Amino acid sequence: MPLSARNQLPGRVAEVHLGEVMAHVTVRVGKNLVESVITRRSAEELGLKKGDAVTVVIKSTEVMLQKD
Amino acid sequence: MPLSARNQLPGRVAEVHLGEVMAHVTVRVGKNLVESVITRRSAEELGLKKGDAVTVVIKSTEVMLQKD
Amino acid sequence: MPLSARNQLPGRVAEVHLGEVMAHVTVRVGKNLVESVITRRSAEELGLKKGDAVTVVIKSTEVMLQKD
Amino acid sequence: MPLSARNQLPGRVAEVHLGEVMAHVTVRVGKNLVESVITRRSAEELGLKKGDAVTVVIKSTEVMLQKD
Amino acid sequence: MPLSARNQLPGRVAEVHLGEVMAHVTVRVGKNLVESVITRRSAEELGLKKGDAVTVVIKSTEVMLQKD
Amino acid sequence: MPLSARNQLPGRVAEVHLGEVMAHVTVRVGKNLVESVITRRSAEELGLKKGDAVTVVIKSTEVMLQKD
Repeated sequence: MPLSARNQLPGRVAEVHLGEVMAHVTVRVGKNLVESVITRRSAEELGLKKGDAVTVVIKSTEVMLQKD
Repeated sequence: MPLSARNQLPGRVAEVHLGEVMAHVTVRVGKNLVESVITRRSAEELGLKKGDAVTVVIKSTEVMLQKD
Repeated sequence: MPLSARNQLPGRVAEVHLGEVMAHVTVRVGKNLVESVITRRSAEELGLKKGDAVTVVIKSTEVMLQKD
Repeated sequence: MPLSARNQLPGRVAEVHLGEVMAHVTVRVGKNLVESVITRRSAEELGLKKGDAVTVVIKSTEVMLQKD
Repeated sequence: MPLSARNQLPGRVAEVHLGEVMAHVTVRVGKNLVESVITRRSAEELGLKKGDAVTVVIKSTEVMLQKD
Repeated sequence: MPLSARNQLPGRVAEVHLGEVMAHVTVRVGKNLVESVITRRSAEELGLKKGDAVTVVIKSTEVMLQKD
């Protein structure tokens, strides 16, 4: 996908929790769980459900770093 | 770290590229590379350099999903 | 906290309003009220309630300026 | 300003540092310093300079909380 | 409005859908529909309803590009 | 593109300005100009230049509204 967002990580949906306006979606990416909040409409239009193959997309300006 | 951001992934700095105001930092997280753009000042104050152990922090509202 | 986010302001929780997926949290910071929208899960896991001491964390790329 | 962004805090510019594309602006808000990264073009078009009265504007979905 | 956000597009509200914490607002901008998620409180305080003239405001660091 | 981001607007690149780390790209979308700040690396990897057909992509949680 020729999108400028530099982080595009393959994963698999682990859980979808729908609210009235938003949806909380958990995705397994390698050994980590990544959590995403998108609109309920997007979750429904994409038909997201447990086990779906998805790509997690994150703009690099949204990524912070903590020194351990 | 008791921070509300739900995504806190352990990694290791792979590259630091400094600009005048911003810095582009690449971090290895498992089998993926995650790219982060932070201020140059933060990169310098944290003393970020290749090999450093860091935690990648991302608020869940910044995470999009693409259905494969 | 050695986090790249440059804005880390001490405050005290003034109100927590929980929705199904998100939570709206108001924090007193000096003479201002700062409002935050986080996931309900984070609000519950942090056990946020009125009077709690918290740090408001904001990445500098998310801060706009208006000339008065 | 009837803008949906819930955080609109009055301050005064403490420092402006221009890069080629971005600008790093520090604003005194009460007893805190708030740092903002905007485009160089906006900094120039607004004519931002030390001492200017400004309003810091932040969408609530961009505000994280850390429990102390 | 002398705000640093570089994208300020005139439009007209097409739909408002309120949740407990958030609101999903659709705005017609030229020939496009732009969708916004703001807090329910902002939607109510602005009194947003179908047909209202509004300006869509987006910080340029939040805008991604896809090559077609 | 089955991406959760609800705003995907067709446009054409009007200008590309490269910095050391970031790039400022202006896109004509209908009668409006939309400005985007992405990494220089993405601008170069996508080979963005004036006249290119692109899609502007914006997550709905990043869109604010001002009542006129």
